[in-house]
Amino acid sequence: MKKIGVAGYGSTKFSKHETPIEELLVESTKQLFETTPNLSQDLIDGVLVSTNDNSKYLAAILSEMNGIKPKISHTIEHLCSSGTNAVISAFSYIRSGLADVILVTGGDVIGNPGQVLEWDNSRGQFNHPIYWGSMFTKAYKRKFNTTEEELAIVSAKNHRQAIDNPNSYSHEPYTISQILNSKIITDDLRMLDCSYPCSGGSSILLASEDVIKKFTDTPIWISGIGQKTNSASFTKNDLTMLSSTVYASNDAYKMSNITPSQIDVAEIHDAFSVCELMAVNDLGLSDKDSATEFVRNLFNTENRKINPRGGLIGAGHPLGATGISQIIEVTQQLQNCAQKRQIDNTQKGLVHNMSAAATSSTVLILES
Amino acid sequence: MKKIGVAGYGSTKFSKHETPIEELLVESTKQLFETTPNLSQDLIDGVLVSTNDNSKYLAAILSEMNGIKPKISHTIEHLCSSGTNAVISAFSYIRSGLADVILVTGGDVIGNPGQVLEWDNSRGQFNHPIYWGSMFTKAYKRKFNTTEEELAIVSAKNHRQAIDNPNSYSHEPYTISQILNSKIITDDLRMLDCSYPCSGGSSILLASEDVIKKFTDTPIWISGIGQKTNSASFTKNDLTMLSSTVYASNDAYKMSNITPSQIDVAEIHDAFSVCELMAVNDLGLSDKDSATEFVRNLFNTENRKINPRGGLIGAGHPLGATGISQIIEVTQQLQNCAQKRQIDNTQKGLVHNMSAAATSSTVLILES
Repeated sequence: MKKIGVAGYGSTKFSKHETPIEELLVESTKQLFETTPNLSQDLIDGVLVSTNDNSKYLAAILSEMNGIKPKISHTIEHLCSSGTNAVISAFSYIRSGLADVILVTGGDVIGNPGQVLEWDNSRGQFNHPIYWGSMFTKAYKRKFNTTEEELAIVSAKNHRQAIDNPNSYSHEPYTISQILNSKIITDDLRMLDCSYPCSGGSSILLASEDVIKKFTDTPIWISGIGQKTNSASFTKNDLTMLSSTVYASNDAYKMSNITPSQIDVAEIHDAFSVCELMAVNDLGLSDKDSATEFVRNLFNTENRKINPRGGLIGAGHPLGATGISQIIEVTQQLQNCAQKRQIDNTQKGLVHNMSAAATSSTVLILES
Repeated sequence: MKKIGVAGYGSTKFSKHETPIEELLVESTKQLFETTPNLSQDLIDGVLVSTNDNSKYLAAILSEMNGIKPKISHTIEHLCSSGTNAVISAFSYIRSGLADVILVTGGDVIGNPGQVLEWDNSRGQFNHPIYWGSMFTKAYKRKFNTTEEELAIVSAKNHRQAIDNPNSYSHEPYTISQILNSKIITDDLRMLDCSYPCSGGSSILLASEDVIKKFTDTPIWISGIGQKTNSASFTKNDLTMLSSTVYASNDAYKMSNITPSQIDVAEIHDAFSVCELMAVNDLGLSDKDSATEFVRNLFNTENRKINPRGGLIGAGHPLGATGISQIIEVTQQLQNCAQKRQIDNTQKGLVHNMSAAATSSTVLILES
């Protein structure tokens, strides 16, 4: 099977501005073109757009705005993990032989669907993501006797790390005390425990090993893929566990033939503080049931291994862009070009992206 | 490369009822389960939904409603060719080795986005599909001296063929005279020259050759795929030619290693009467520039080779379902189980699905 890797990338700044979706998509694509040597429109076989925006035909419109005439083009939506779904789709198009080079561009505008789950009647009155974040937090605190301070450490760490990410929404160095004293949203969540809804766009170019050297001397390969939609987890499973993440990560580790201990850097879907604690455990990155100690140690030693770009909490969460931005961060870390955010000696990275109370998860393994 | 084929299918009736999107998706999936031997939920690796509906996370919701816990799930949108885009995506997931069996379910509710192009500012005041249908018709009549009667033959043929399709929107045997006297919409289009906006859902199961025999003794293989998004065609190219269709069909014929003369049955995207005339020419099914004679001959000899289920004009056009329904019809023809619609000795079939004034086209070749 041919290897497929990241050949280029681009991103907008994440902000609260109501930038039109087309502009977000074009801006990040433009940056990708500017920073990817030898890339021309005619080399692109496919254009996939990941978004929750209600506009239609965006992949064709983005193509037209960029002068690309692709074979493959369509929009992919799967709420908060739309971005990684589009990247895996691009991976499969290339591996199947239907394409060699695919542009994946994701974006969402602040206030877009997905930030409020107006349509999701299956969850009764719990129609806003904050409710499941709150339920997860309550259950987690009950099981592990986790303190509010331990939860606040996640947010303090990720906000601190976001300062060195020029594209992040927040550049505020919030302290644990400021987080604990931020606005109360529910019994268990403060404002600064939540990821920021915002506008943003990000783009990635995927290419097969046959052609990737044209675009980069340091391709980063996608070596492991795991996905699971396990919708019933919300009602049937333990609320302190991301069961779809466990399934997805097992498949991803198996496909790439590595173990969690080999991961040097990970982008984790910290929609709420508690999600990072749950995920590092369910991905096998921390010793079992010691997630709070693990994250506290990262914080105290200024170790950026988890969410170096600031996570969804620090960098913001424009749904369709998030998964792609996570991949860009791991790519930059593995290329040793993450500037102030750079972690030493990174060779293997992980991306964890999920949707709707972890009813779906994606896990990717990237390697240099 | 492993072969991939159609292992099962299901469809709702197409109607003007405002059936909720979830119900359309579930109903056609239910029929697929009922008619596909040995299919159980745990055998399905992926669930892809094709729709223009604004509801989010429909692939996960459909999975939950059917008790499926897939690895891959998301929604695919590309206006009128969303359905074939989803099927080709499923094909690539299977061929890439990430899946063996994928359920593709498409649907749209009458009045959904895509039937009126409210957002499409790139076309100035021409914000309704009827305008491009009208422009195409005017240009075609001017170039080929095509008469209104010759255009009406397309509609009369497809309405007549739809009578034998139990799922079609129309079962009315409209005559040429009735079509010519139907409501005037623009200078060049009567009401009965247009496809019907409607509600409908359709499902297809795709499987690799490794496992397909479990589900069917008569798998129909997807042997050719061509796609093109050629957005600028509308402003730069000849309005009497579907340039994206020419690109897409060349690729599809090449991949399947056949010529147009070998096609026994074809489902054509007749959004308006003129589209069928343009497409049979651009797909190479009629002799060059003799499309009107070709279709007149089919009509006079009651030959169902083109659009046996009635096309979009007779069967209706619920956007996200259309491409999938076209594949189901060709599959049934190649399986020799199309009942009253059956054409003799069919071995190779073609599906032609397009979006937005043919700015995108998909062509598939299917073989028994």
